[in-house]
Amino acid sequence: MLILMDPKAGEGDVQAVCARIESLGFTAHVMPGATSTAIGITGNTHPIEEDRFAGLAGIARCIPVSRGFKLVSKEFRSDLAGRDSRVQVGPDPTCGFGAGMFGVIAGPCSVESREQILASAHAVKAAGARFLRGGAFKPRTSPYAFHGLKEEGLKLLAEAREATGLLIVTEVKDTDTLDMVAAYADVLQVGARNMQNFSLLEAVSRTSRPVLLKRGMAATLAEFLQAAEYIAAGRRDQPWQDSIILCERGIRTFETMTRNTFDINAFPVLRRLTHLPVIADPSHGIGIASDVPAVARAAMAAGADGMIIEVHPDPRNALSDGAQSLTPAGFEALVQQLRRLGEVVDRTIP
Amino acid sequence: MLILMDPKAGEGDVQAVCARIESLGFTAHVMPGATSTAIGITGNTHPIEEDRFAGLAGIARCIPVSRGFKLVSKEFRSDLAGRDSRVQVGPDPTCGFGAGMFGVIAGPCSVESREQILASAHAVKAAGARFLRGGAFKPRTSPYAFHGLKEEGLKLLAEAREATGLLIVTEVKDTDTLDMVAAYADVLQVGARNMQNFSLLEAVSRTSRPVLLKRGMAATLAEFLQAAEYIAAGRRDQPWQDSIILCERGIRTFETMTRNTFDINAFPVLRRLTHLPVIADPSHGIGIASDVPAVARAAMAAGADGMIIEVHPDPRNALSDGAQSLTPAGFEALVQQLRRLGEVVDRTIP
Amino acid sequence: MLILMDPKAGEGDVQAVCARIESLGFTAHVMPGATSTAIGITGNTHPIEEDRFAGLAGIARCIPVSRGFKLVSKEFRSDLAGRDSRVQVGPDPTCGFGAGMFGVIAGPCSVESREQILASAHAVKAAGARFLRGGAFKPRTSPYAFHGLKEEGLKLLAEAREATGLLIVTEVKDTDTLDMVAAYADVLQVGARNMQNFSLLEAVSRTSRPVLLKRGMAATLAEFLQAAEYIAAGRRDQPWQDSIILCERGIRTFETMTRNTFDINAFPVLRRLTHLPVIADPSHGIGIASDVPAVARAAMAAGADGMIIEVHPDPRNALSDGAQSLTPAGFEALVQQLRRLGEVVDRTIP
Amino acid sequence: MLILMDPKAGEGDVQAVCARIESLGFTAHVMPGATSTAIGITGNTHPIEEDRFAGLAGIARCIPVSRGFKLVSKEFRSDLAGRDSRVQVGPDPTCGFGAGMFGVIAGPCSVESREQILASAHAVKAAGARFLRGGAFKPRTSPYAFHGLKEEGLKLLAEAREATGLLIVTEVKDTDTLDMVAAYADVLQVGARNMQNFSLLEAVSRTSRPVLLKRGMAATLAEFLQAAEYIAAGRRDQPWQDSIILCERGIRTFETMTRNTFDINAFPVLRRLTHLPVIADPSHGIGIASDVPAVARAAMAAGADGMIIEVHPDPRNALSDGAQSLTPAGFEALVQQLRRLGEVVDRTIP
Repeated sequence: MLILMDPKAGEGDVQAVCARIESLGFTAHVMPGATSTAIGITGNTHPIEEDRFAGLAGIARCIPVSRGFKLVSKEFRSDLAGRDSRVQVGPDPTCGFGAGMFGVIAGPCSVESREQILASAHAVKAAGARFLRGGAFKPRTSPYAFHGLKEEGLKLLAEAREATGLLIVTEVKDTDTLDMVAAYADVLQVGARNMQNFSLLEAVSRTSRPVLLKRGMAATLAEFLQAAEYIAAGRRDQPWQDSIILCERGIRTFETMTRNTFDINAFPVLRRLTHLPVIADPSHGIGIASDVPAVARAAMAAGADGMIIEVHPDPRNALSDGAQSLTPAGFEALVQQLRRLGEVVDRTIP
Repeated sequence: MLILMDPKAGEGDVQAVCARIESLGFTAHVMPGATSTAIGITGNTHPIEEDRFAGLAGIARCIPVSRGFKLVSKEFRSDLAGRDSRVQVGPDPTCGFGAGMFGVIAGPCSVESREQILASAHAVKAAGARFLRGGAFKPRTSPYAFHGLKEEGLKLLAEAREATGLLIVTEVKDTDTLDMVAAYADVLQVGARNMQNFSLLEAVSRTSRPVLLKRGMAATLAEFLQAAEYIAAGRRDQPWQDSIILCERGIRTFETMTRNTFDINAFPVLRRLTHLPVIADPSHGIGIASDVPAVARAAMAAGADGMIIEVHPDPRNALSDGAQSLTPAGFEALVQQLRRLGEVVDRTIP
Repeated sequence: MLILMDPKAGEGDVQAVCARIESLGFTAHVMPGATSTAIGITGNTHPIEEDRFAGLAGIARCIPVSRGFKLVSKEFRSDLAGRDSRVQVGPDPTCGFGAGMFGVIAGPCSVESREQILASAHAVKAAGARFLRGGAFKPRTSPYAFHGLKEEGLKLLAEAREATGLLIVTEVKDTDTLDMVAAYADVLQVGARNMQNFSLLEAVSRTSRPVLLKRGMAATLAEFLQAAEYIAAGRRDQPWQDSIILCERGIRTFETMTRNTFDINAFPVLRRLTHLPVIADPSHGIGIASDVPAVARAAMAAGADGMIIEVHPDPRNALSDGAQSLTPAGFEALVQQLRRLGEVVDRTIP
Repeated sequence: MLILMDPKAGEGDVQAVCARIESLGFTAHVMPGATSTAIGITGNTHPIEEDRFAGLAGIARCIPVSRGFKLVSKEFRSDLAGRDSRVQVGPDPTCGFGAGMFGVIAGPCSVESREQILASAHAVKAAGARFLRGGAFKPRTSPYAFHGLKEEGLKLLAEAREATGLLIVTEVKDTDTLDMVAAYADVLQVGARNMQNFSLLEAVSRTSRPVLLKRGMAATLAEFLQAAEYIAAGRRDQPWQDSIILCERGIRTFETMTRNTFDINAFPVLRRLTHLPVIADPSHGIGIASDVPAVARAAMAAGADGMIIEVHPDPRNALSDGAQSLTPAGFEALVQQLRRLGEVVDRTIP
């Protein structure tokens, strides 16, 4: 932690900050600068809460030298010897995300009917997906929109799993329905709007399911990792290292031609900061079906460990997100592009 | 709803869209433009879900003419005859927000101890507040930060109410603790990170408590009103019109010198769009104690119906948000400024 | 300057940074932290360019303790003894901005005709303005839009000055037309899109005219002050301290209901950081005529030293910005509100 | 153009808008909606300025159906028969950008010395670049930073061209130095801060040099294309279609871990909207040397037509942007990655 004092701060203010630092059992280093003074802290073995210095007079800013997340940080997993985590789902070792393995999740935004989800499942499996996505509980901006088939939708997903062998990735939107969703899902998805729903993160961490955590639309990468830290911290007894998947799905900016701004920078930055696999959601990242393949290729080229893509047997009649859903044929063409691309960028699609 | 076709859309695409419109029982109006065609829809009595046209070929954009919220819209409450809603809390008609009545909520970010909350309560009451704020359940970005005293904190708030007569405003962070919080609180606060936690909004709507809804840090004003619509829609049988308070608390932008960017524009815009009262949280809006009074004055001058301000008897030792908390003396000075200002801008602080 | 080393940085990297610091004649302070090392620099008498450390291995971030602007900083003007600068325009000491004096600039977006600008001038003078705004050279997003009457427009502004005694504030958009514009203008306006047009800032600094510098739509407050520093640095021989006016006009964010997001936080923050007067442009700040008065009141309440407002004798037929222009009657009502408000917040409108 | 009326607009307001439309020689289509009325316009042969309706009472929004740019739009260049423009520089047909040809520009941020620029030129040529970048006139945020070697720098670039045969890409920052820069440069770069410096765009359009236009840090894609339209509109007599190159270099968002947020979505969107080639600047797009290759690969995979990359023989001692500059070895490795990637995504690096 580094503390920048206000240019107007007096000697007494500086001494008060140093006293606080010493009272916490740490060492203070005072450095007078051209226009203001900075105070460094050493001796701490873990991040110091900024709150510890709240309201001390004359403080301009507190700058964390350590970054507020630890279990998910690259440094923490020393046993990795450079290897990143891999989240294997189910018994098949080729079914997972990370450390070279590229997992493909595909399916409709929402489960709409038995016919629709079974058609989707067979189509995406034929194209090469190993995971089926589909929402049974849908968070929607408007209270008047379609909110999903609830448990009926979960049962249809289970039927699709039976029929195809695909593993199920579906969103859990609240703690009330967590047990129900966890009973059907192979991977629990926490949506962008819930990235900082800390009660849900804590509850999810207590299940035995791998978690797919989506980045919030206004979350910094540091906040994204801190949200993952919530799940890791709740899983200390489990092999948590290999049970959390991060997903970049676009952030909110001033640009209006696209649904979101897909943050491609997130891949190299997160690769440096964390051992967790990071996958891409190009469907929400740009929101325009014709442009999804370009963003998907870009994400793989930037280092993504997998992909979650919206595919619908009949996008024109989808109840939600049809405008950004690929047709089965479009998805198959994309997977072929990704297989060729994977050979160049060291990613394997089983 | 207006549908803009892609410049490359063909006659067949346009006809397909018109057919869809007719099939929904509405009327289509085709308008060829300089570079693309637009199609207008009439005959609908409520907003049309964009989903209805998902995936139809050649659609560039769907533009809602109506705005996705209805119960909370200015137009809806025709009985108001121009009067905006007022949220009265408790039996005292001067204790509320809106329609000229300016409510003042003050207190610490978190309830830390019996001494701290009682000292805060007496101090803010003496300065003119009618409501006491204080968090017992704190959502925090880091899993390692202070998360509040839980039910013990709620009991201390109740004790402070007994001792001062102040009404209690406290945050509910999840559905699991809703009943407990509702048993102690006079007003339930839904925080910025939960603005789109739709399960929580629905659960809160089923209680009998007035709700203080904070704007999400990346929420548009339209999304803010749609979140309020969730609460209103769940309260149809209650006098819901007078039970929801909106709160602008700053949005996330590229500026780094302040904690958030306080969106002063929200006040005149929301005043035109909704009958609900809108209050300000200048403490989070700028995040710097010395600058809070300027933002508070600005919000009142722009039309705010109330204020929620962080005040701590000893900000230097606050466990959270000390850097943006006013001292009791600073708060008292601010309330005096606001009383004088209120006379100029037609706001009454009882 | 503080340098944060990367968690992976080695002892050699730290030593290399220290060697660079010593080679610059400064002193290095090494501070090992929990997960990474920080190095502080002292002994410098002015800001150090981050470039000096460019590319040294293992550096995570450079944090300026001093802030890249000096002449415009509050600290610099020690002779002020707490008084802020006042920019007086012309011989009349009551005609200016800052240190309690509130200057009002009003007029149309563009000079359109002799009748229009004279009608505007008489109307805004009658309402209490001391300065007339009007664009003769208009930067427009589209090459096909109206770009102003050029020198003819400047002559009409001069005629309006003759007829009313109002002082002229008009925009200079490039160095080629600077001399011409300076020959007619009393105050040179540099527009938001030119805030970082450094060649224009340097050229403007060499004139003898006071400058009204608008904040860029994506400029941080630090960049805004650094742009003002360009002008101050070029005026060392003149009484530059009293010749630069800053103007907050809204920043670009994700919100789409308003033209820009007016950054009310800028007023208290800039008041702490600089001695220069700061005025508000509520017309561009929200972009909706009916909402301009609320934003104008808010800016004055937050500490603005003046206002620039678009007023048109017939907004319905304005060639540009009609949607955000007040009528003369609307402007007169606003000035009356501001006079009453000024009495409460210590601002005088002569 | 579509006009959305305010929910409160009266019949008279609607009639007034229609009258205005008719007076312009166009046809009005009135469409009453659920909560407000929309009016469509047809009969126009080119975009209608929103200004035409400025201030008419009761207008909520004007929505352009056509998009404010025409010469640079995909539709305009019907002669292309689906082929996009290619900007060939110099006599060599393999030296250019677009229509499958991938141009590589590399070199230091600034020309610092004869040794530095010659070493850079030989190194990037050996690695496969055909173009040398290097700034002689540097726009810098701080007036106290290094601003380039001016004409001396241009002469050194010319010498490097003599020595290596590389073509020169260098920035022109103002109209005063345009002729001088154009006398040395093969391609004129207009920087991000000047994207809306319309006087510079107009002046540049009158030269015979190809132009590399960088996207402004807060510019929407529509504004980016309108800025290119300024250059095209000034070049009607020249083969302007093949003389403008667009460059995505990252936009400003709330994320602070990276210098900018590289907008990967820009590539597929611009490919649909314009016939102009679009290249990438990953160096500024992320601002961290170790992460530049990942972003560069992503841009090519998303459809970029070229790349401009900062390379310095000794980044540790660069006078500017060293932190984001690759070493010659790092650049050579990247070009090899891009050659392999190009085979998969149909891009040829000569």
